[in-house]
Amino acid sequence: MSTAAVAQLQAQVNHLQHELSTVKTAEQSPHTGEQIFIGQYLVERLVQLGVTKMFGVPGDFNLGFLDFVEDHPKIDWVGNCNELNAGYAADGYARVKEGGLGVITTTFGVGELSATNAIAGAFSEHVPVLHIVGVPSTSQQKNKPMLHHTLGDGRYDAYYRAAQQFAIASANLDSKDTAAAEIDRVLTECIVRARPVYLMLPTDLAYQKIPAYRLKTPINQEPPENDPDVEAFAIDEITKLIQAAKHETIILVDACAIRHGVKKEVAELVRRTGFPVYSAPMGKTSFDEQYERYGGIYVGSISHPEIKEKVESAKLILSIGALKSDFNTGNFTYHVPIARTIELHSDSLSVQYATFPGIGMKRLLPKLTARLQPFEPTATLIPVPKFEYPVPREDNEIITQSYLWPRIGQFLRAKDIVVAETGTSSFGMLEVPFPTGAMFVSQILWGSIGWTVGATLGAALAGQELGYKRTILFVGDGSIQLTVQELSVMIRSGLKPIIFVLNNKGYTIERYLHGMTRKYNDISNWKWTNLLDTLGGEEGKTCQSYRVGTKSELSKLLDDPTFASAQKIQLVEMLMDPHDAPNALKRQAELSGKTNRYVAELPAAGQSAV
Amino acid sequence: MSTAAVAQLQAQVNHLQHELSTVKTAEQSPHTGEQIFIGQYLVERLVQLGVTKMFGVPGDFNLGFLDFVEDHPKIDWVGNCNELNAGYAADGYARVKEGGLGVITTTFGVGELSATNAIAGAFSEHVPVLHIVGVPSTSQQKNKPMLHHTLGDGRYDAYYRAAQQFAIASANLDSKDTAAAEIDRVLTECIVRARPVYLMLPTDLAYQKIPAYRLKTPINQEPPENDPDVEAFAIDEITKLIQAAKHETIILVDACAIRHGVKKEVAELVRRTGFPVYSAPMGKTSFDEQYERYGGIYVGSISHPEIKEKVESAKLILSIGALKSDFNTGNFTYHVPIARTIELHSDSLSVQYATFPGIGMKRLLPKLTARLQPFEPTATLIPVPKFEYPVPREDNEIITQSYLWPRIGQFLRAKDIVVAETGTSSFGMLEVPFPTGAMFVSQILWGSIGWTVGATLGAALAGQELGYKRTILFVGDGSIQLTVQELSVMIRSGLKPIIFVLNNKGYTIERYLHGMTRKYNDISNWKWTNLLDTLGGEEGKTCQSYRVGTKSELSKLLDDPTFASAQKIQLVEMLMDPHDAPNALKRQAELSGKTNRYVAELPAAGQSAV
Repeated sequence: MSTAAVAQLQAQVNHLQHELSTVKTAEQSPHTGEQIFIGQYLVERLVQLGVTKMFGVPGDFNLGFLDFVEDHPKIDWVGNCNELNAGYAADGYARVKEGGLGVITTTFGVGELSATNAIAGAFSEHVPVLHIVGVPSTSQQKNKPMLHHTLGDGRYDAYYRAAQQFAIASANLDSKDTAAAEIDRVLTECIVRARPVYLMLPTDLAYQKIPAYRLKTPINQEPPENDPDVEAFAIDEITKLIQAAKHETIILVDACAIRHGVKKEVAELVRRTGFPVYSAPMGKTSFDEQYERYGGIYVGSISHPEIKEKVESAKLILSIGALKSDFNTGNFTYHVPIARTIELHSDSLSVQYATFPGIGMKRLLPKLTARLQPFEPTATLIPVPKFEYPVPREDNEIITQSYLWPRIGQFLRAKDIVVAETGTSSFGMLEVPFPTGAMFVSQILWGSIGWTVGATLGAALAGQELGYKRTILFVGDGSIQLTVQELSVMIRSGLKPIIFVLNNKGYTIERYLHGMTRKYNDISNWKWTNLLDTLGGEEGKTCQSYRVGTKSELSKLLDDPTFASAQKIQLVEMLMDPHDAPNALKRQAELSGKTNRYVAELPAAGQSAV
Repeated sequence: MSTAAVAQLQAQVNHLQHELSTVKTAEQSPHTGEQIFIGQYLVERLVQLGVTKMFGVPGDFNLGFLDFVEDHPKIDWVGNCNELNAGYAADGYARVKEGGLGVITTTFGVGELSATNAIAGAFSEHVPVLHIVGVPSTSQQKNKPMLHHTLGDGRYDAYYRAAQQFAIASANLDSKDTAAAEIDRVLTECIVRARPVYLMLPTDLAYQKIPAYRLKTPINQEPPENDPDVEAFAIDEITKLIQAAKHETIILVDACAIRHGVKKEVAELVRRTGFPVYSAPMGKTSFDEQYERYGGIYVGSISHPEIKEKVESAKLILSIGALKSDFNTGNFTYHVPIARTIELHSDSLSVQYATFPGIGMKRLLPKLTARLQPFEPTATLIPVPKFEYPVPREDNEIITQSYLWPRIGQFLRAKDIVVAETGTSSFGMLEVPFPTGAMFVSQILWGSIGWTVGATLGAALAGQELGYKRTILFVGDGSIQLTVQELSVMIRSGLKPIIFVLNNKGYTIERYLHGMTRKYNDISNWKWTNLLDTLGGEEGKTCQSYRVGTKSELSKLLDDPTFASAQKIQLVEMLMDPHDAPNALKRQAELSGKTNRYVAELPAAGQSAV
């Protein structure tokens, strides 16, 4: 039986157990007859789960539901400029909430489909996002009139079918008798499996009443139990391997350690055992980067040579929550044989070549920690070189990529959220050790340019709630053009992010992959420092814009305490060379080039057809 | 057998016939061995079909292909700010080209999915759009590594599956032996059936060589032949009915008359027979609105009373290319029984209750015209009141909706393309008779807000080519926020549209549908007159912005010959009342309200849950 099938079965068991307990509670309820609209039930459930913001765009099939949202004192409607940005915001919000979910509400067809890329990205990167779609009434869905927002051919299920590709669970609410259970089911799946779910809310059902008692039973958010025999056996196996390796083991943390909520368990494991810990790019800041046993970012062949040596020479690697995508592994250049690898995942475990489906890391980790704690005296003897990148001395005033990122490292503080766009920014950030308590947010597997602008909105709103002090965005001029309007929602929401726009005249990451001097990699140059003021800010009052073209100008700005205190939304245009890139990106591009056959087979420029 | 099934069979016959003729040509070819890259083959085919612009966003899986586009002298790459806008632009381009197709190129996953809404809209509204997606190499598709832009679970076919919902035909090129035939097949389907097709181009295949001879056989663009016996029978039936009705017949033209290319045939029918002609909103400007036998726009119950009376009292209605959606029919209030209706479609015919699958209007219409011509002397006796809306006299300076649209009518000229956004603009335009030769572009069935901004880019580029003088956009402040960045591509492309932004502080159409004073229908106010300058223009030089708050200011601007000559891109912010709407929209909203059950069932504002 496949891991996915086992996970699905377990989810079903979970769901049934929860249903049973809910029904039992109902039987004990006094049945005072308290009733609630289904739309309100949904909002209440979200509030119970700690959702404080709902993203989206109003549309005529969701307006009635939005009344419930607007009227609820504990949840705010954040009207986005468009649905893609709303999806990105919900994604960014969920990432920072860690364990909570992001919510986007759109309207049938035109709205929901615009969010498709955002939802697929959340699926790819294991981010729990609930997509609520206001859809035509149940009777319209039966009779299928040619309503606006339909395909004109009566296929009312077309959007649902498309959405199935990018959702871990879905429900089309079609009866008030099952609506509450269906809502609970998809919410549980969303949180436990940390992936998007899709919920269709018909206009009429949102306003049908159901008994309220069910709200007294909290939504199940716990992953399923591990089979105790299998778990005990696996822990024995792991322990034997580590003993055999004479404790020469390192821990490698990756994306799913964050998404499936085991950061604390990993921290405990490292503190109690003393094994060196490294992280993959997508696992960056899953672990305190200032901790003495933390060694930095491992990215296969493009890693810093010292890190590469330390990781690849370890006798055993305990890999936690790996997502081994090309950009997360230096284009699949891990030089780590399976025979030396133990892999912990949210719903399975691999020990060398053996797999243990259904053994999830959340429940395994504390037991493993207890078992490995005795190894601490020898484990701590393994040396871990400090993860640091000094600012290079360069005899020029150009803001080079090699200068920029270490210099930014000096600017960062605890309680910063740093959002880095796919491209030069996400690669550059790999060479910036973060202060304790700062969070790195990036989208390295999905890699949709423009994502950070929406994600920053969501991240900043969640950050505000969780006591983060600053949200700092690094985005290229090419990427920000995709989603720029969301700056206006940041302004309207009173957020104060610092936005660094790397103006390098186009898509530099793509220049490195192919077409260094091609026109299609150019973009049009905007007046970046007018942007905030145009989109609803008041320059000098509610917003502030800067333009820096030299190292000195940049340094002076970064050292300015007013700037650093982030008292209003700020945008910094940085003039940079279109043909410069962080070292890691240069190496990655070289590696990708080898696998993209067309790169080697280009015809001479200007060659035309018959 | 269903109409769709018959159409599909006929498409298959067509395709096989074309294949046969291509292969025969090949057999006769000298086989000089001339070879061409598959990517070049595709570009050549597009050029043959008259495609001069390709929209899209570069991404690493399409960069190699874009080299062919950039290097071809007859096609331009229009790099868009994002994929949704690119899809909208391809749609707008195809609409203005009438018979040609629009093309958008995106990259795997992140790119293509962002265009989903645009493609679905083109599907809904019968617009031929080719979506080319640069995808991983054929070997990567087999081995399924965890590449960036994948879902991380090996489902390389997920995007294809989603795209199937919104494409009339698709191909994943996977072999150089079939690639050319597959390209030809989807191009034919795209044009003949006037709907989107989806083409996956792997990085390696774009650079494989194939024989070039196939390019000598043009792509089939003709609809299938009608069965001559059925056609003759149907024409007899129609003729008998018109005779029985004592010629009291009117012609009603709708969207598909434009999309399936029968504007000329309809004009010929009307000129030769003299029957009165009306159009549905989606058929607006399918017929010369100044022609003496043209009576205006019929929209069921929300029609002008005189038009409603004329259409509904006719003994017979010859409906051409109908798309009877809610907003196109006054919320399904056609008071025209089937027994009095003859419906011509691209791939079927209905005469009263009888249907004739496979009898397409393109080939039927000339024969019908010849047959009905003798009725001309009596048909021309039917009176047709002139379609006109005088500018009302109002004793105030407010730019009301009732004043605005007729006033704009005076501003329009022949060779204008007028793009009207869903909402107050598209409804308002229904009361503006257009000059001969002007074109109306709107998206009344799909109704995706923000669409017009991308569509205007595409429409203006196509219009330039076809001798249109001005492109004029009417868009609300809420809608333009979704897609605003595309203004910068207009500027970069040297286009000179006139952009009227109706600043009415939010989503007015939605206020009318539900939530008149709700916050979720508010948006943030931008400095509209700074927008062009910020996004790459030079105010006063390459662009010009205006703000008008009164009738006099608006009138003065419209009368200014420099403004009207549209020598640079211009944006006009018009201050309007958030609670004002065109009459047609007010009536439509009243009708929709009756069918959206929740409207009647709202809880008291502020009522909260348990």
